[in-house]
Amino acid sequence: MKKVLLLVLFLLSGTFRAQSAGHPRLLMSRAEARQIRAALGHTPLLDRTFSQIRAEVDSAIARGIEVPPPGEGGSYEHERHKQNYRDMQKAGLLFVITGQEKYARFVRDILRQYAAMYPKLGPSPYARKQAPGKIFHQMLNETVWLVYTSQAYDCIYDWLTPADRKLFETNIFRPMAQWFTGRNAREFNRIHNHGTWAVAAVGMLGYVLDDPNLVQMALYGTNKDGKGGFLKQLERLFSPDGYYMEGPYYVRYALRPFFFFAEAIERNQPELHIYAYRDSILKKAYYAAVETIFPNGVFPPINDASRSMNVKAPGVVIANDLVYWRYGADPNLLAIAKLQGTVQLSAAGLALARDYGDGSRVPPLCWKSVEFRDGYDGRRGGLGILRLGTEEDQSMLLMKYGVHGGGHGHFDQLHFIFFEQGREIIPDYGFCRWINVEPKFGGRYLPENTTYAKTTVAHNTVVVDEKVQNNGDRRWAEKVWGQRHFFDASNSDVQVMSARADSFYAGVRMQRTMFLVHDRRLRFPVVVDIFRLTSSQAHTYDYPIHYSGQPILMEFPYTAHTKGLRPLGSGGGYQHLWVEAEGRTDGPVRFTWLDGHRYYTLVSSAFPGTEIFMTRIGAADPNFNLRREPAVLLRRKGRAMVFASVIEPHGYFNEAEERSEDALGEILRVDVLGSSDEGTVVEVTGKGGLNWRFGVTNGPADARAVHRLRFKGKTFTWMGNYFADLNPEAAAKQRKGRE
Amino acid sequence: MKKVLLLVLFLLSGTFRAQSAGHPRLLMSRAEARQIRAALGHTPLLDRTFSQIRAEVDSAIARGIEVPPPGEGGSYEHERHKQNYRDMQKAGLLFVITGQEKYARFVRDILRQYAAMYPKLGPSPYARKQAPGKIFHQMLNETVWLVYTSQAYDCIYDWLTPADRKLFETNIFRPMAQWFTGRNAREFNRIHNHGTWAVAAVGMLGYVLDDPNLVQMALYGTNKDGKGGFLKQLERLFSPDGYYMEGPYYVRYALRPFFFFAEAIERNQPELHIYAYRDSILKKAYYAAVETIFPNGVFPPINDASRSMNVKAPGVVIANDLVYWRYGADPNLLAIAKLQGTVQLSAAGLALARDYGDGSRVPPLCWKSVEFRDGYDGRRGGLGILRLGTEEDQSMLLMKYGVHGGGHGHFDQLHFIFFEQGREIIPDYGFCRWINVEPKFGGRYLPENTTYAKTTVAHNTVVVDEKVQNNGDRRWAEKVWGQRHFFDASNSDVQVMSARADSFYAGVRMQRTMFLVHDRRLRFPVVVDIFRLTSSQAHTYDYPIHYSGQPILMEFPYTAHTKGLRPLGSGGGYQHLWVEAEGRTDGPVRFTWLDGHRYYTLVSSAFPGTEIFMTRIGAADPNFNLRREPAVLLRRKGRAMVFASVIEPHGYFNEAEERSEDALGEILRVDVLGSSDEGTVVEVTGKGGLNWRFGVTNGPADARAVHRLRFKGKTFTWMGNYFADLNPEAAAKQRKGRE
Repeated sequence: MKKVLLLVLFLLSGTFRAQSAGHPRLLMSRAEARQIRAALGHTPLLDRTFSQIRAEVDSAIARGIEVPPPGEGGSYEHERHKQNYRDMQKAGLLFVITGQEKYARFVRDILRQYAAMYPKLGPSPYARKQAPGKIFHQMLNETVWLVYTSQAYDCIYDWLTPADRKLFETNIFRPMAQWFTGRNAREFNRIHNHGTWAVAAVGMLGYVLDDPNLVQMALYGTNKDGKGGFLKQLERLFSPDGYYMEGPYYVRYALRPFFFFAEAIERNQPELHIYAYRDSILKKAYYAAVETIFPNGVFPPINDASRSMNVKAPGVVIANDLVYWRYGADPNLLAIAKLQGTVQLSAAGLALARDYGDGSRVPPLCWKSVEFRDGYDGRRGGLGILRLGTEEDQSMLLMKYGVHGGGHGHFDQLHFIFFEQGREIIPDYGFCRWINVEPKFGGRYLPENTTYAKTTVAHNTVVVDEKVQNNGDRRWAEKVWGQRHFFDASNSDVQVMSARADSFYAGVRMQRTMFLVHDRRLRFPVVVDIFRLTSSQAHTYDYPIHYSGQPILMEFPYTAHTKGLRPLGSGGGYQHLWVEAEGRTDGPVRFTWLDGHRYYTLVSSAFPGTEIFMTRIGAADPNFNLRREPAVLLRRKGRAMVFASVIEPHGYFNEAEERSEDALGEILRVDVLGSSDEGTVVEVTGKGGLNWRFGVTNGPADARAVHRLRFKGKTFTWMGNYFADLNPEAAAKQRKGRE
Repeated sequence: MKKVLLLVLFLLSGTFRAQSAGHPRLLMSRAEARQIRAALGHTPLLDRTFSQIRAEVDSAIARGIEVPPPGEGGSYEHERHKQNYRDMQKAGLLFVITGQEKYARFVRDILRQYAAMYPKLGPSPYARKQAPGKIFHQMLNETVWLVYTSQAYDCIYDWLTPADRKLFETNIFRPMAQWFTGRNAREFNRIHNHGTWAVAAVGMLGYVLDDPNLVQMALYGTNKDGKGGFLKQLERLFSPDGYYMEGPYYVRYALRPFFFFAEAIERNQPELHIYAYRDSILKKAYYAAVETIFPNGVFPPINDASRSMNVKAPGVVIANDLVYWRYGADPNLLAIAKLQGTVQLSAAGLALARDYGDGSRVPPLCWKSVEFRDGYDGRRGGLGILRLGTEEDQSMLLMKYGVHGGGHGHFDQLHFIFFEQGREIIPDYGFCRWINVEPKFGGRYLPENTTYAKTTVAHNTVVVDEKVQNNGDRRWAEKVWGQRHFFDASNSDVQVMSARADSFYAGVRMQRTMFLVHDRRLRFPVVVDIFRLTSSQAHTYDYPIHYSGQPILMEFPYTAHTKGLRPLGSGGGYQHLWVEAEGRTDGPVRFTWLDGHRYYTLVSSAFPGTEIFMTRIGAADPNFNLRREPAVLLRRKGRAMVFASVIEPHGYFNEAEERSEDALGEILRVDVLGSSDEGTVVEVTGKGGLNWRFGVTNGPADARAVHRLRFKGKTFTWMGNYFADLNPEAAAKQRKGRE
């Protein structure tokens, strides 16, 4: 309704720019440029940015201009065109701030070369499945080029001669906008980060050229009916909590066009109140992105993602400054700026840099445990994050139970990551892609991304019958999603999240409950995992835990394959796993490994005929595209099944100092006392009389329901969704229910 | 002769202590303690040490004393006894410096518990092959205990009651010295780091107890004939250049007893002029140790060694301070202190800390290329190190061609390590040992140390017929050594070292020449390797290059083993190598991988029927004791053979920034133009007309000999041992010879 009203208002208003008739008008005004100039030398963070940008651009000018013919993705030419738009944008800013004409000339001279080349180009011959660009193999890169080049053009617009303006608009800008909105209209109207880049590019160009037609297409889609365009993207790509359906790696990329364009809209059509749109969805989107980060500033690699993308990414810097400036001065954003070490050259960057000072009074980043609802309607599962401790000492447990996440989604419902000691201890593999590494298929996604990285066994969640969830079918996966069961982080010593995924394997219902437990008798917080599966049919259930580092102790009978290796399976990702050792036991499983300066022990409950496989990636990898990472996998056969496990960090190892402490963990065993449709009760036993009990409901979530279950001759009674009793004998404070 | 004279003087003098009648007398005088106390608060580096030590000891006092019964190597008990001697030594120092009696009481109370336990102990039941201790499983740890505890006892000696002194001497010190010099006399007299600890322990105790008998045994062996003891060790364990035959990892351990005892001798028997002994061998020993370090302060893992031991090790800190104080204020030692971040609480530490100030004016460490002669007589090969660049940007190439190095020696003559980008790019595996990790065989050396880590194929040197050098027989290995051919680092753009190993495989002669080449047309220095083998018999020659990171491009025909893996061989270390892929070519071999932020390409000369194996460690490893590291191995069959290769670092990769530059190297091929008994000539061809030629003599080294060889229709003439021509067409300055 609101949206329709806006659309009507817009069409009535006849013009879209209330602010200024001159340039620049996209992201900076002349008055702001003067303020930045005046602040230089007094604002350390901004000074650093300015010096760096000036050094980069001066060196680019000294090296000389090069506008090569188009090339392969990841090729020298590809990279050069990317460098050109970055250089132009920065030179434009320097021109506006310093007034030095050499920067304007540099932009103009590059544009002249593009003006000479662009009209001769057809669709790139290097495109594969993507919508093609002309300068680049895919249109995506070309829209990024235009987002940046529009800014540069805006900065030098008034300085250019009318003849140059005409040349650039006729030879580059208008045909390029036509290329995006005409032949590639489908890509342009897509509700997807590629679409966001496209609408931002065309919309920003529209403001610079004073062209309402371009702006309207950008806001409402090529048909101007609101089915595509920026506003639709703001509605559909984020959940009501701001969570981005593709995950953090892609949102950091999408933040750039979202915030560049939003800021341009705010400056040129303030009547749209874009920052307030959908209950300030842009603010929520930014917070939901940065509240997922590991304590070291790296984004968790959910779905297709690298393991190293972090808050220094340009989109995150841009959004951090703008959110700080437009939505209010949150000290946590100063802490993010400290991790970033930089700001943008903009009024927003200046505002943040002023408050930042020399950084000495910036408080530590203080993200709390949080759950994000997923799906545009907020009803499609979510993402749970439990945190304990501060900064580098923080333990972080993340579970995924939301939507599939589009073409970059992984088949990994109920997958978890455990981060501790400044690293991913139970890691996500990330994507299989050597990004921008030209000899690796032009830096594109590799075949093993589909055959391994996206599969279920590549993740820390149960695999049924060696198959990929949803049979690896994206259409099926897009129609289903995880469901939250409950989430409670109110007691910092026992935090818990629980979720379900019932439509991912035909006839199999899955429920995972994960606790992050802090018991002062142990040196570090531990993970308690209760994964329950039910089915009317018998299945093979595989519970893989990926790890890094060196196996130290395997406390179960096993045989190592010392003379030959075979893959664990023939499909579903299993074809990539060598079996280094395997064992079988009716007893509990205990496996200790060393990672960095700490030991870790996985302790799993016993089940008759449990098979254990020590695996390593590397099979079916003819081009060495996969990293050789290990996992331990527990296999059990049956109908209903509970995998109850503890992951305990312990001890200390320092090879350089030749120190080793507590290489053996404190937790001795985990027992499933019982499990029914109503609830599951688990007992954890450790050295020195340590004894914990956990209960979780398996029916509907209800904080007031009273549960009374009898297992192994004992009665367990609790109210609500769970209980966690770290000291059952002494009826300690942590008690949440009663026996 | 000199030695005999000293011995005579010693025996005549009747007493050995000219200095002082009181205590402490070993490593610090009361006057020095007063100077340290006065300096506190004005000397940042010393202040840091003092605060840290005081915090440690105060916390140890708060935790309370524990003297447990003896335990396994690496066990809690083992570690606790180690902690006890460290605590006692530090508490002793604090008592002398601060005068606070709580520190003296702490030492006394611990000693009382040892006095109660020690008389009841027999030889440790946990000893395996080692000489047994009583408190510890091996005598080695017990001698270390005594080296430290003697110092603590010295510090509180005057404060103790005569009854306590009698108790400690009767129940601990005299029986312990008797244990070392009596039943374990063989270990005590050994010319080996274990022997050094033993003599230092007994000698230092001797000074504290005023017992010339103990001191004489320590200096000259239990028989006082000079065949064992400290002076013999100074003569035999170091080459005339100060190089320690076991290598840097073990010398950092041996530096402690060498310098502790030397300093005690200097203070108690200055007439021995111990620091001047053997042309100041202690100074040379220290420099030869720290001049081997990688630019990050880590010791190269030659022979049995971890990959992380560094200059922060206690022995290196002790020696650094003492060498600075006793031999002269070298700014490079201040730079080492900067890496160490600490000094000792001693007069030497005070002297260094005063010159160090706040560290801001300490110059960067400036080690140059250097060759160390090996063997006590300096005639048994050596160790060559070529360096280019400064600090983190330094490239370092190290070749080993000395003596075997005793029981910790590896069978790796002509092995090399290439360090660049702050890491080992062509690494040494180090030892197979998880030091002090109790579940890994008590932290001892593992069986795979012998079956893999010591073998030839575990190193970057040619393996003949899949066998270990010297057939893995240490007795054979101890009788032979590498021979230096030539070493020239006078031209920083072309540095070279060449060496031979002729008695390691029956009937096979090996010569390796390695250049570190800096050509401004390339971004980084490159390695050029010319490895020539000759034999009257046909052999299989395997040329392994170990690497880290991710294979990027293999430019030779190959088949990956995607469905099953087999070991490369059945012995000699090969049983541990899985073959991930193999190929065969008559053409050149080019292999590119990614390691950290840089790409590396190995380019090897063509030879008909060359086989290539891509290997990974992991076979025949039932207990997961080995790390899963890769290598590429070139196999050729014939009599005379030349492997000519280039290792080129190139480009830049940053995954977080999604940047990749120059993933393909500049060097295209390497050709052996010819090789005869007189010389070998190699050509390197790169992009953009890059063309290098290298020649090396294969006969005796002679700087004045003129060589004239005709290969492939061209005549190559040069004077001396080699030529390196980076620009043959232009007859550039680098030319060292003429065609």
